[in-house]
Amino acid sequence: MNEACGVVGVAFPTSGAALSIYHSLYSLQHRGQESAGISIAHEGNTRSIKGMGIVPWVFKGNDLLAVPGSVGIGHVRYSTAGGSELENAQPLTINFSGGTIAIAHNGNLVNSEELRLDLEQRGHIFLSDSDTEVIAHLLVKDLMRNNLVEAMRRLMRRIVGSYSFVMLLNDILVAVRDPLGFKPLCLGKIESEGEQGYVVASESVAIDVHDGEFVRDIAPGEVLVITRDRMESHQIYKQKNTAHCVFEYVYFARPDSVIDGRLVYDVRLKIGERLASEHPVDADMISPVPDSGITSAIGYSKKSGTEYIEALMKNRYVGRTFIMPSDTVRKRAVQLKLNAIKQNIKDRRVVLVDDSVVRGNTSRRIVDRVREAGAAEVHVRIGSPPIVSPCYLGIDMPTREELIASQKSVSEIEAAIRAETLGYLSIDGLVESIGIPANDLCLGCLTGVYPVEIPGEKCVLRQLRLEEFDCGDSGEVSSF
Amino acid sequence: MNEACGVVGVAFPTSGAALSIYHSLYSLQHRGQESAGISIAHEGNTRSIKGMGIVPWVFKGNDLLAVPGSVGIGHVRYSTAGGSELENAQPLTINFSGGTIAIAHNGNLVNSEELRLDLEQRGHIFLSDSDTEVIAHLLVKDLMRNNLVEAMRRLMRRIVGSYSFVMLLNDILVAVRDPLGFKPLCLGKIESEGEQGYVVASESVAIDVHDGEFVRDIAPGEVLVITRDRMESHQIYKQKNTAHCVFEYVYFARPDSVIDGRLVYDVRLKIGERLASEHPVDADMISPVPDSGITSAIGYSKKSGTEYIEALMKNRYVGRTFIMPSDTVRKRAVQLKLNAIKQNIKDRRVVLVDDSVVRGNTSRRIVDRVREAGAAEVHVRIGSPPIVSPCYLGIDMPTREELIASQKSVSEIEAAIRAETLGYLSIDGLVESIGIPANDLCLGCLTGVYPVEIPGEKCVLRQLRLEEFDCGDSGEVSSF
Amino acid sequence: MNEACGVVGVAFPTSGAALSIYHSLYSLQHRGQESAGISIAHEGNTRSIKGMGIVPWVFKGNDLLAVPGSVGIGHVRYSTAGGSELENAQPLTINFSGGTIAIAHNGNLVNSEELRLDLEQRGHIFLSDSDTEVIAHLLVKDLMRNNLVEAMRRLMRRIVGSYSFVMLLNDILVAVRDPLGFKPLCLGKIESEGEQGYVVASESVAIDVHDGEFVRDIAPGEVLVITRDRMESHQIYKQKNTAHCVFEYVYFARPDSVIDGRLVYDVRLKIGERLASEHPVDADMISPVPDSGITSAIGYSKKSGTEYIEALMKNRYVGRTFIMPSDTVRKRAVQLKLNAIKQNIKDRRVVLVDDSVVRGNTSRRIVDRVREAGAAEVHVRIGSPPIVSPCYLGIDMPTREELIASQKSVSEIEAAIRAETLGYLSIDGLVESIGIPANDLCLGCLTGVYPVEIPGEKCVLRQLRLEEFDCGDSGEVSSF
Amino acid sequence: MNEACGVVGVAFPTSGAALSIYHSLYSLQHRGQESAGISIAHEGNTRSIKGMGIVPWVFKGNDLLAVPGSVGIGHVRYSTAGGSELENAQPLTINFSGGTIAIAHNGNLVNSEELRLDLEQRGHIFLSDSDTEVIAHLLVKDLMRNNLVEAMRRLMRRIVGSYSFVMLLNDILVAVRDPLGFKPLCLGKIESEGEQGYVVASESVAIDVHDGEFVRDIAPGEVLVITRDRMESHQIYKQKNTAHCVFEYVYFARPDSVIDGRLVYDVRLKIGERLASEHPVDADMISPVPDSGITSAIGYSKKSGTEYIEALMKNRYVGRTFIMPSDTVRKRAVQLKLNAIKQNIKDRRVVLVDDSVVRGNTSRRIVDRVREAGAAEVHVRIGSPPIVSPCYLGIDMPTREELIASQKSVSEIEAAIRAETLGYLSIDGLVESIGIPANDLCLGCLTGVYPVEIPGEKCVLRQLRLEEFDCGDSGEVSSF
Repeated sequence: MNEACGVVGVAFPTSGAALSIYHSLYSLQHRGQESAGISIAHEGNTRSIKGMGIVPWVFKGNDLLAVPGSVGIGHVRYSTAGGSELENAQPLTINFSGGTIAIAHNGNLVNSEELRLDLEQRGHIFLSDSDTEVIAHLLVKDLMRNNLVEAMRRLMRRIVGSYSFVMLLNDILVAVRDPLGFKPLCLGKIESEGEQGYVVASESVAIDVHDGEFVRDIAPGEVLVITRDRMESHQIYKQKNTAHCVFEYVYFARPDSVIDGRLVYDVRLKIGERLASEHPVDADMISPVPDSGITSAIGYSKKSGTEYIEALMKNRYVGRTFIMPSDTVRKRAVQLKLNAIKQNIKDRRVVLVDDSVVRGNTSRRIVDRVREAGAAEVHVRIGSPPIVSPCYLGIDMPTREELIASQKSVSEIEAAIRAETLGYLSIDGLVESIGIPANDLCLGCLTGVYPVEIPGEKCVLRQLRLEEFDCGDSGEVSSF
Repeated sequence: MNEACGVVGVAFPTSGAALSIYHSLYSLQHRGQESAGISIAHEGNTRSIKGMGIVPWVFKGNDLLAVPGSVGIGHVRYSTAGGSELENAQPLTINFSGGTIAIAHNGNLVNSEELRLDLEQRGHIFLSDSDTEVIAHLLVKDLMRNNLVEAMRRLMRRIVGSYSFVMLLNDILVAVRDPLGFKPLCLGKIESEGEQGYVVASESVAIDVHDGEFVRDIAPGEVLVITRDRMESHQIYKQKNTAHCVFEYVYFARPDSVIDGRLVYDVRLKIGERLASEHPVDADMISPVPDSGITSAIGYSKKSGTEYIEALMKNRYVGRTFIMPSDTVRKRAVQLKLNAIKQNIKDRRVVLVDDSVVRGNTSRRIVDRVREAGAAEVHVRIGSPPIVSPCYLGIDMPTREELIASQKSVSEIEAAIRAETLGYLSIDGLVESIGIPANDLCLGCLTGVYPVEIPGEKCVLRQLRLEEFDCGDSGEVSSF
Repeated sequence: MNEACGVVGVAFPTSGAALSIYHSLYSLQHRGQESAGISIAHEGNTRSIKGMGIVPWVFKGNDLLAVPGSVGIGHVRYSTAGGSELENAQPLTINFSGGTIAIAHNGNLVNSEELRLDLEQRGHIFLSDSDTEVIAHLLVKDLMRNNLVEAMRRLMRRIVGSYSFVMLLNDILVAVRDPLGFKPLCLGKIESEGEQGYVVASESVAIDVHDGEFVRDIAPGEVLVITRDRMESHQIYKQKNTAHCVFEYVYFARPDSVIDGRLVYDVRLKIGERLASEHPVDADMISPVPDSGITSAIGYSKKSGTEYIEALMKNRYVGRTFIMPSDTVRKRAVQLKLNAIKQNIKDRRVVLVDDSVVRGNTSRRIVDRVREAGAAEVHVRIGSPPIVSPCYLGIDMPTREELIASQKSVSEIEAAIRAETLGYLSIDGLVESIGIPANDLCLGCLTGVYPVEIPGEKCVLRQLRLEEFDCGDSGEVSSF
Repeated sequence: MNEACGVVGVAFPTSGAALSIYHSLYSLQHRGQESAGISIAHEGNTRSIKGMGIVPWVFKGNDLLAVPGSVGIGHVRYSTAGGSELENAQPLTINFSGGTIAIAHNGNLVNSEELRLDLEQRGHIFLSDSDTEVIAHLLVKDLMRNNLVEAMRRLMRRIVGSYSFVMLLNDILVAVRDPLGFKPLCLGKIESEGEQGYVVASESVAIDVHDGEFVRDIAPGEVLVITRDRMESHQIYKQKNTAHCVFEYVYFARPDSVIDGRLVYDVRLKIGERLASEHPVDADMISPVPDSGITSAIGYSKKSGTEYIEALMKNRYVGRTFIMPSDTVRKRAVQLKLNAIKQNIKDRRVVLVDDSVVRGNTSRRIVDRVREAGAAEVHVRIGSPPIVSPCYLGIDMPTREELIASQKSVSEIEAAIRAETLGYLSIDGLVESIGIPANDLCLGCLTGVYPVEIPGEKCVLRQLRLEEFDCGDSGEVSSF
């Protein structure tokens, strides 16, 4: 299952985990609104609460928030087509000979089906379709005969793909990021009721919400082992290159997050500026397609000198969680969501800045609405290159057949969405806006060349180097 | 987990499983009101719906009932202290190398902890605490290398305790009853929309609800394998003696069910008559403690010639599912539930007939209310012998310390519940009322001697004989 | 709107009203499961909580139960066809120049439409269709110029029909019963946390639930005015004859209630005995149609000497509140609800005792099921005379066209329900079983002659005598 | 009750009202998220659905949307302190001698208490506290003796305050705006399934959502009477001056709405520019307080030439409808809602543009967060003048004591919110930005001088002139 999610783990000396996780999940809500869950280790037990919907609904009136546990993890899950059920909510909790494991996972394994079949051949059974259950089976096997760090090393040798996960092994918090660092994961220090604690989370905003201190990104291939009084770092794998997901910068992450050293807001501003350089146009106004196009539109306006005026107003109450009661209503969804401001648009040459084009349908409807509202010309500028290939690493995208840029040239797309001109950001432009070398980014969906092996797709493997790892060595240790 | 539940399995040639299971579960609702679930095999998939609460709530408005599957199973679960969560609802569904298995289980394994630890030592992981997941792990292991019947044989050699379960192995319905036949399970033929089908269920009322034909009880040690067009019977184990639970007759089953050849209503009537012979009393009226004492009270009245008059009226709206909003209310629970009819009682010598005494608190409160209502004397007659030992085989009972008859003599209990006289049915009386030899009943809670080994308890093992079983032999086969 | 409901009013010196009302409503739940409501006067305000469903659901977790008010009223409402919405839930609360009035009403006015039209002609507006709102308008008009008792007198001169209602006029509890006493209403003394208080309720079980003392029935035409420290009785109207509803005895009230001096259980027992005398039959067993036929069947068995054996078992979980998910299921409703016990019935001549026949459909289905279960003969005995005419006074009944006894003779009905014989209780038999002279009962639905004028129906008016009432006289006063 | 709400009315020749109202309410959701309701006239009946929460929740799965009515009204209600209950949801529906009236009201009467007392003195009763019920009582009285238009004239002579309401009188749609035009109300033409219809709504976005044609604002003092085939306009009152609410422009209305001829976006842009002129500051960046400060901040940036950079990011999932589970969480509400982007702020001189300051607490917390994030200086610019007096005309505001500008000077507020400088827009600046003469605006909350009489407050009455109105004259008529 290809999923984008948000994870958080927290460890304090004596208490405060539950409420801290709640606040962090709230700040990561944009990474998933389908379900939310928290697991807290307390007095030898692991208590979990999971539910469908957004964070405040799931935990409303729930006494878990008052559990005095000091270590815990949390998860928000994104709704992909199908499979929207409570059984899929995380953390996944299992019992084994060594106690209890709870896992909250963000990412997508590309070999999970193969691993699952192999495990099934050995007699393992699965209660869900999730990658997370595969991870649990593998890990438990390794934990039977090895210490935690060695077990993690063996696990990471088996699983391929993107993964950033947090885990409770009884009352030990473990955080791990895959060797290529596809998905973000960062470390911070926070305070709660006078106690210092650690927080590990998908984005730095989950640290900010506590007025906490951002410490650093978790390194690709790193495993953190955090207990109530100390933290160990184990650099299990060291890679020459990474494969950070570019779409976290383009639209998935919050603009106020810092990911792998780059402020997302700043990347988007630069994307807008670069777009203005690459695809200038003589126009009267620059408008974002709200919300994800806002920052890039500001950048485009700044660079081009053309005025920033909003052509479209978004109805804040139309969300993915708001079910449309009928087909008739669904057809009207774009109108409900985006209203064109006629007076701002009339007789003007409008540049619309959006983050990406997937199937092209939404873009066409938006261009139509702006034109019907009286625009003299409609120019579309996209803050990312054409998406020509699917994502297998954790961003929810349709099949290759549905990706318009996989089927049509830019000029054909320009015609299809009925824009006067259409300009996509170049790959170089995106890479430079992010400020991370192309060799350290995953550009699979933009180039069709992936950093891991995927059956039927081209691949340029990142060169990995397995660290010599001495299980007796406890790695770098920090006290609280 | 010690649980009493209800199970049902249905197989038709082409469709109709879901609605038939729904009706059967409705008729088995008394066996469990905590949760309900249905799994239907359809076109290579197994779809399940589970939810908290009673059958009509769980499936209200649910489109599962319209799924055109022809084979399926269902489950209702009893609420025991704690563990009342959706995760525990059944059927349990798992994926393994051979496809999908769904299990709905009634009973309690006495060696599940041992089996679980053994499996955990071998690297297995568990997502729940249920016996059912243990069964699934064991079965899958055996299915890897054996055909279904041989795998069932191996499973049944490992698990000890009470179990009657139905299972979907992909689209094959399997029903099994433990070699001692603790828990009831019976077979019927039903019709739906012109098709003949089979139903397997905990009680015969689940056949009656379809106006179906009761075929027979599933034999202890028997495995039925039912597909959409035929049924095989495999007598895996054959035992000299069985160990049918007596409390199914005393209070758990519906009076209109026939279990192992005995109509429950008839057993209860005989219990009442026998009680009148064993503990006659010069009184003015015989009254049941409703509802479970009704039939025995009728029998007592008939035998004794003393008039049957209701001393207590039950509020039909006070149920186990109706949560009391506060402690103050809880204290008043008996008053809310049972009202003494003063005019029927006043100055009369009343015989109250109840099915059993567990802790003694409820009995005392009822005697008090009848006396306060003006009874001249209150005589209590109990349609079962004293419960001196816990049940490990699937009836929800408290610990030995809480069982009043484990701590006090009959005369002490008589004093404790403040009755003029107290008479328990003798063990012989119960056995003869049931009409099954004592050697074929489980009397563990009444004698402290159990038919299976339980650590710290006395045991007289039933003599088992493993049938020579040829895996190539498909047993007795019936067509639809 | 023709409605049967349950009402309760409570007054204590300083606190305890809410929880006492809650308990009383619980005991009156059989009078209405559609909605429930409580209004409490406290510190100059009237707080109300109303909701759909049964009492424990509506007030679950509600802090109203903790409101320290000492005076309040409550209501449970019966679900009639249509109009099942929260807007119709009671108590109805209104503000007027003199403060706040909350009313909980049981009964049916036969001139409400006329009164409503008259009020509308005078410019009044109505937010609901309920009789209660009509009562509120009339009462407020009278309260503008008169004291409470005089206003009640004027109100009672205007409204015609059945009504027993309790009312909060600010913090004064008022209880009133119509001059003919159609609907029951009684007075009791209860205790809560050391305080003595009064309770007024539809049935005496609402006093029993508190272990309270039954004081007396409210007299027809009487108005009780109860404050936190005293109670006044005003016999506003005195009638030569009353018109108590016979169906309260036949099936609506709880058997353990005492209504107008008669224990309902005792009436039903006598009904059964009388039925045995009027319609003897040579049979093998007497069985009730559960639940409402139980007591009469016991009486029939006692009188006839034929054995009482249950032929039908009721599924306790099939209730009016349990919605059937589809038409297919609805057709199976009788099977889900009542199961025939074949072994009890087979080859026997069965007498089925039921309380009444309305449309005849259910009776026919039950007779069919008993016969299919193997009965040699099926004799039906009905504990009430044929219902030939609709009820306009508060019992939920269908139109005349749908009443089978209005369309067919007894022998035709016998054929229609496919019974060997059918015997209805005679009107004399019913009257004598109740033990109240026919002149003091409402027999409208049995005779077609009503005690109040109803357009298109025959009427023999009860002779009323308006008491000379001196508004300065405060009536009979009791202190707490 | 002082309430800001949204209303809509729709009339088509034969069908389509319900779904059109649903869409319009969706677009007006920002005017109220507490409850929503729709009333549809169909075949002589008026059907209503009301519920708590936002539009998609209330009508999810509701079959009202399929009712083939052609005329209807809708309402969204704002949650003010207390009184958040279903009873207060609108439309209010009443029955009277002439049929049914449903009313959806936006505004606040300043003499409703006086009117209510007067009506109560005449024997009227009230089931709610709403102004709407007062309006219904008055209107019905007048409708008894007058035609609709004359009745409206009489009603409007009695009620004082702000009101824009839509009403169904049986199947006639009536729209009315108070003579001073406090609250917006506009008229549009829309199409649904090939039919032309009229829509009346609080804001023009409710026309845009249908791709409809904005016709005009309803004139202050105008009554529109719309049936399925024609529309009449009656200018009941004509005033020399109006009193349009300025806060609709400042923050309440959507930026893409046109109100009384002014695009709200344009007004806010001008507010920002004017603010830059009135309170320039040497700074490094202009940032809005999202969302309501965005457009003004763009204007400030444009005028000042200082760069527009977002200092604060809003968590879209923290809404007024999202209940905080505990006090601890509530304290963290600002952090959950607004995150400061450190990298954008660090060492910079930041200008924060917000729409208004009410109590000052939120402003102080925001300034603190921006300063903690490293800002060198924090300058606050407010797009409205100081609020010195409460609103009695329909904007939810606290008491005078709680309004910081009523208690402190600007320099004291500057100190209280800990900003380097604080600049409020001048009243002249606001008036000129709106582009409507001060004499035609309500500036009560900014000046303490109100356009209607309010006890204890200063008032300069707008000069009204009652039109000579001939009841036989049907006004200006348009056909569809």
